[in-house]
Amino acid sequence: MEQYRVSVIGAAGLVGQELVSILEERKFPFSSLNLYASDDAGRKTVIGINQAFPIQLLDHSSERNAFQGANMVFFAEGDKLSRHLVNQAAQAGATVIDSSSVFRLEPDVPLVVPEVNAGDIQNHHGIIASPGCSTILLNMVLSPLHKINPVKRVIVSTYQSISGAGLPAMNELTQQTQKILAGEIPRPAVFPHEIAFNVLPQVDVFLDNGYTKEEWQLMDETRKIIHDNGILVSATCVWVPVYKGYCQAVTVDFSNEINTDIATSILAESPGIRLVDDTGISLYPQPRAATGTDMVMVGRVRQDTFNLNSLVFWIAADNIRKGAALNMVQIAEEIHRKGWLNVENQR
Amino acid sequence: MEQYRVSVIGAAGLVGQELVSILEERKFPFSSLNLYASDDAGRKTVIGINQAFPIQLLDHSSERNAFQGANMVFFAEGDKLSRHLVNQAAQAGATVIDSSSVFRLEPDVPLVVPEVNAGDIQNHHGIIASPGCSTILLNMVLSPLHKINPVKRVIVSTYQSISGAGLPAMNELTQQTQKILAGEIPRPAVFPHEIAFNVLPQVDVFLDNGYTKEEWQLMDETRKIIHDNGILVSATCVWVPVYKGYCQAVTVDFSNEINTDIATSILAESPGIRLVDDTGISLYPQPRAATGTDMVMVGRVRQDTFNLNSLVFWIAADNIRKGAALNMVQIAEEIHRKGWLNVENQR
Repeated sequence: MEQYRVSVIGAAGLVGQELVSILEERKFPFSSLNLYASDDAGRKTVIGINQAFPIQLLDHSSERNAFQGANMVFFAEGDKLSRHLVNQAAQAGATVIDSSSVFRLEPDVPLVVPEVNAGDIQNHHGIIASPGCSTILLNMVLSPLHKINPVKRVIVSTYQSISGAGLPAMNELTQQTQKILAGEIPRPAVFPHEIAFNVLPQVDVFLDNGYTKEEWQLMDETRKIIHDNGILVSATCVWVPVYKGYCQAVTVDFSNEINTDIATSILAESPGIRLVDDTGISLYPQPRAATGTDMVMVGRVRQDTFNLNSLVFWIAADNIRKGAALNMVQIAEEIHRKGWLNVENQR
Repeated sequence: MEQYRVSVIGAAGLVGQELVSILEERKFPFSSLNLYASDDAGRKTVIGINQAFPIQLLDHSSERNAFQGANMVFFAEGDKLSRHLVNQAAQAGATVIDSSSVFRLEPDVPLVVPEVNAGDIQNHHGIIASPGCSTILLNMVLSPLHKINPVKRVIVSTYQSISGAGLPAMNELTQQTQKILAGEIPRPAVFPHEIAFNVLPQVDVFLDNGYTKEEWQLMDETRKIIHDNGILVSATCVWVPVYKGYCQAVTVDFSNEINTDIATSILAESPGIRLVDDTGISLYPQPRAATGTDMVMVGRVRQDTFNLNSLVFWIAADNIRKGAALNMVQIAEEIHRKGWLNVENQR
């Protein structure tokens, strides 16, 4: 069996740490696992199941070694570092799985949610991109329905937890919450405004068309993943004062009439989805309950008032796991199963 | 000038207390102001600007006195008490302004947002209903646009603060937040699940069609207020761990093409609306910032991706003020201005 020499870039962050534990949990066949971070924020090791993995600081001298001999490299630190190093890693012969937004819309970079479009991986040229968290969650649910009744228009409002903005943001939520409970006035640092006991309809930067980058990429990424450039996706992306778990309120207009019972039975049988839907006992997806699980929870499935072609539903999932780290590991597992390693740049 | 003998039923609650202070603030011409509550939760007085108003407990013997001599009665305690006493108050000759959901859809009860349909008050038979908070906010923004370009379909996701569920709910949010910060596990009481650092897609009870009562009434009430039974309103209503301020992400399909610039200039000139919309400096409505103000804040106004007939925007307002108490006082002011007191049952 193939054994992989794996590097994780950005191992000190939330996604990087989760990546390490998922690789161990799912027994990904690595022969070596080397962790790097350009900023370790004081974290010197990641504690795994059986061992502690040291984190090496990335700098001009160590960058080259990070890919030397690695045949699978996960990038989990963000756009800046990926822009700087991903191509270098791929050219050094590694197969790169990148969580940043830098390469997602590049025509020759597959953008993959394994349950949806694993086959796209085969066409990679050394780099495979993992979509944004909101995109992954939405497409997990859209895709099985789209196959039986093509999706035309999606309207989605998100309820995104602060872990999506990283560890400093989570600390800011805690500190601001404590201050407000103590009757003090908090001062924003990570976010432009207070986040404790508040909601902020701004995730990432604004584009000229009035959408944020996070909102607009939901359409672009969905079109690429589902292979349909006609789909309209209009999003409002919102930070809510929750530590972990992303939620979405979704309305979907399909090409033809769609029955709620058929839709729920399709969702119930779809891989990676758990139907959490019994309004009689107040059972529906919640971000706290989704934390730490691998499934995308779907509930509150209902007809859109009197539109027979439309459904409304509610999604929750762990943004750090299926929304990021787990999706990246699943891409790696698919590469392993199919033998789709980077061969173009093979040393 | 007419002087009113005013009673407030439910004066110990959040809306009742705010009502008293708004009546004083706006110098509503009352000659007497008597406060009642069926459950005072230990509150014996409401402290006004110039004086403290005692709260009298409602029981079998005091109920009759509550309306004796009153010519304007505000009901702010909820469905149970309104169902029990509103008709009695109207029959005793008072003009009743009721915030409960009991009478809102009764054909002979006007349902009023004064900026939208103040004229409907004239046809009352002793009872005027104030809409649900979410309905008020939504219709404040829909109505001026509907007049120039009829609204066909509305899709709205709400971010509702815990004050909408009353004082015990706010206390539960505080207690659960403290417990979680201390590493303890909170136990839900007011809500079916944890509300601290969590979001719950259930406001009020579920109907057979999968919507909650809160969600479905947004359509029924909007149709009645805007006088158009063809409008489709599909809502997902969600509690978020915020103390005060309701937000809404809204997508509106109009009958014809609509231009963002025209829409924003109409909204900017509409009474009761404040445009808070400059993405260049991260300026948009927020629940904490809306708290304590009388305006409905609108921002993030943008075209719905490529749909020229559709707009997307974001609303925030103080749910206890414009969402409830202020709207009730504005109804009373309109009655005062026009002399539209209950005459049918006049003693």
